[in-house]
Amino acid sequence: MIEEKTIIEYVRTSAADVFSTMLGLEIANEPEYSDQNAPTISDGVLAFVGLAGSWTGAGVISCSAAFACRICNQLLMSEATSVNEEVLDAVGEVANMIIGNFKTMVEEHLGPLGLSIPTVIYGRNFTSRSLGTNSWIVLPFTCEGETISIRCCLSPAREPVAVRAGYSHASAVLA
Amino acid sequence: MIEEKTIIEYVRTSAADVFSTMLGLEIANEPEYSDQNAPTISDGVLAFVGLAGSWTGAGVISCSAAFACRICNQLLMSEATSVNEEVLDAVGEVANMIIGNFKTMVEEHLGPLGLSIPTVIYGRNFTSRSLGTNSWIVLPFTCEGETISIRCCLSPAREPVAVRAGYSHASAVLA
Repeated sequence: MIEEKTIIEYVRTSAADVFSTMLGLEIANEPEYSDQNAPTISDGVLAFVGLAGSWTGAGVISCSAAFACRICNQLLMSEATSVNEEVLDAVGEVANMIIGNFKTMVEEHLGPLGLSIPTVIYGRNFTSRSLGTNSWIVLPFTCEGETISIRCCLSPAREPVAVRAGYSHASAVLA
Repeated sequence: MIEEKTIIEYVRTSAADVFSTMLGLEIANEPEYSDQNAPTISDGVLAFVGLAGSWTGAGVISCSAAFACRICNQLLMSEATSVNEEVLDAVGEVANMIIGNFKTMVEEHLGPLGLSIPTVIYGRNFTSRSLGTNSWIVLPFTCEGETISIRCCLSPAREPVAVRAGYSHASAVLA
């Protein structure tokens, strides 16, 4: 088991480390809150990294298009002024590092977890929704006047519904 | 190891089973192809399920907003005519079942894998990008005149960059 306050501490430590070490940027934490829903974005970037194993969850980082360019320019010493593939890759890589470090810390409590490939979404107006969770811990922080948010959820895994009897999890285990 | 043709066979089997059993819909496969990029969507729904473990990857199902409503109405016997939360949950659940069954079949080759929580994105114009893969297998199929596509990638896991020495994977293992 893991307490919510431990999750919060680990995510904040990991985010501050990655921003400081990899981007040369300092961040200031805002108060956390919980949210029933995944984020809706207007002109922004959302980077999603899934966690899977005996516990399942996700980390989602969202920021404005302008700050996504800033992340890219700091990480890759580039001069992006609009969201291109390089910017999306940079935001995905930063999300991967933050959630990857978080995963390593959490594994001391929960045992081995896997990290899914990071996926980055960019658009002017889109909505996201994640199943199997009804509570996200939202950890906003500010950096250079912008607000960035990290959302995290983590709960014991549920098995997917087995549709095809011949290939069900139960029969695979018994085979 | 697992061959691409085996992945293709398993995804198609799982999709046909879920559509037939859970939705009462028959599907017809179109030829597969590979794509360097994750999909860009205009007025549609994208459901993403990550796979993680010693191999990592993802399954992504994309369809039109209209077909997302059709999936919801077949699964839940509802009468949705526009994309609402129920529709997003239904598409996520179908993606979870298809990729979950696929995971069970693949585990016979690759050992245990975890499934991340399904995430569904809906918008009129957004682009997605996944890191750590440069080749998606795209498996389009038709159902009632609509084209739905399933994208899949699967490759040996890479470790995330360890930023904080005290919490690196290597030191955690050695501790």
